[in-house]
Amino acid sequence: MLWYKEKLVTADEVKFDLADRGLLLGDGLFETLTAFNHIPFQLEAHLDRMIHSAQRLGMNLDRAVLQEAVLAVAGLDEAPCVIRLTASRGTGPRGLAPPEHATPLVFATRAPWHNAMAFGQAKLATVSIQRNPTSPTSSMKTLAYLDPVLSLQEAKAKGADDALIVSTSGSIACTSMANMFILNRNSLVTPALDGSVLPGIIRRLILDLAPKLGFIVSERACSIAELLEADLVVASNSVRFLTRIIGVDDWPLSNHSSEAWMALKNAVAESVSQECKGFALTP
Amino acid sequence: MLWYKEKLVTADEVKFDLADRGLLLGDGLFETLTAFNHIPFQLEAHLDRMIHSAQRLGMNLDRAVLQEAVLAVAGLDEAPCVIRLTASRGTGPRGLAPPEHATPLVFATRAPWHNAMAFGQAKLATVSIQRNPTSPTSSMKTLAYLDPVLSLQEAKAKGADDALIVSTSGSIACTSMANMFILNRNSLVTPALDGSVLPGIIRRLILDLAPKLGFIVSERACSIAELLEADLVVASNSVRFLTRIIGVDDWPLSNHSSEAWMALKNAVAESVSQECKGFALTP
Repeated sequence: MLWYKEKLVTADEVKFDLADRGLLLGDGLFETLTAFNHIPFQLEAHLDRMIHSAQRLGMNLDRAVLQEAVLAVAGLDEAPCVIRLTASRGTGPRGLAPPEHATPLVFATRAPWHNAMAFGQAKLATVSIQRNPTSPTSSMKTLAYLDPVLSLQEAKAKGADDALIVSTSGSIACTSMANMFILNRNSLVTPALDGSVLPGIIRRLILDLAPKLGFIVSERACSIAELLEADLVVASNSVRFLTRIIGVDDWPLSNHSSEAWMALKNAVAESVSQECKGFALTP
Repeated sequence: MLWYKEKLVTADEVKFDLADRGLLLGDGLFETLTAFNHIPFQLEAHLDRMIHSAQRLGMNLDRAVLQEAVLAVAGLDEAPCVIRLTASRGTGPRGLAPPEHATPLVFATRAPWHNAMAFGQAKLATVSIQRNPTSPTSSMKTLAYLDPVLSLQEAKAKGADDALIVSTSGSIACTSMANMFILNRNSLVTPALDGSVLPGIIRRLILDLAPKLGFIVSERACSIAELLEADLVVASNSVRFLTRIIGVDDWPLSNHSSEAWMALKNAVAESVSQECKGFALTP
């Protein structure tokens, strides 16, 4: 079962119009979130982000419809799941220009989430594709997501688990699927939202939680050099929560801050537990 | 009628899988071409480009299938048409990484082409989104086409017909839908294929035809300054063929070279006539 055009249906019942601009042009948005005990984690933040992105695109999305879609698929089964919420601009005539009054197509699907997805570790590889701060696709989860796909492909071809992506400005942007945090002593830094970085939901959560753990947080430009010398490097996203980065290309990263790593993991797990009826992420 | 999964079907018969990576991630390619008298113009060049792009993406496309799709929709009706050929990587599991053996989804649709589309004129507006030469999406027609969509939207909001897009390097790349040519006396220049420019089919045709018309052609970095001072600025694409650029923002462009404009139009029209059984573009 999935949510499609305002109701739960089976895949067989989907009537999809090939003139959909999401398919033809990547003209649309998505969110990926988890749900535990039927409760989508950080739902409001995900909906806020999608609505804000829709405004930037000139798409008219109904927040209540998005929420209903997510809650409907979250409610299908109590097993932990990953929910993908997709909103295309809808159909349009041939060409790039959207119709004046497009009707967005909203659908949501779910896939199993496993505890092993959380709090893992990853080796990164530097890649050729840079992040373009002038492109709205760099700071939104749009259906035009091929750059991250190809960045990941390039990193995997190099034997790594994920890509270390820099901005065209040369500073660190993100991985193909996550925001980055760099810790030195008690200073926790993440790349600023300069247009090349997605305003990640877990990124925001960490920025909110970390001061309570004694970290001094800041958002600014980060160089690869400081990443390589850091006490701890962590990637954050909505499915894997936190991932410890153990190397970049042939350069192993230090593991000086196992205490900080534990503290961050515990804080995120505690957030999930509080929001999702005591669900235990077992960090 | 349209071509979908290796045969002609009606729109009602389309069974589309929402796990398609073209829809979810922009992971796929397209071509737009015209057909006159049932004959797709520059078909081989379009197929070459799509196959070459597919190789870059690691997609396994069958050229014979692509050709059959285009010829099938071209053959539906003798009216001139615009054909859109789409090839998504196919379905895959959740996440960015494509499956090891994806089965591409190929479909082709047609829309009416009108003589008024050819050889028009357009006013451009400079826009905020720059073209990223490190992104494969800048030099291929991928389904992740949101940057051109938003560039056009921004240009139209400024009262222009199309966008003048520069590369992150600062030099001219293209419009939202066309390559650019700049003429000064008999020197015809187009931005080099530095990664930020699509290798356009009509661009290639002009580079081949122009020397026979007495132009000296070159591909190199072009500045906005030289565009603004040119004798003639022309945009080229596969639907509109050539478009004369009459202004950028508030700066009117000269019309010194009406002879060159006529010569280029006639040469393209002659190519169409030769390839498509005497079809007259009436430039």
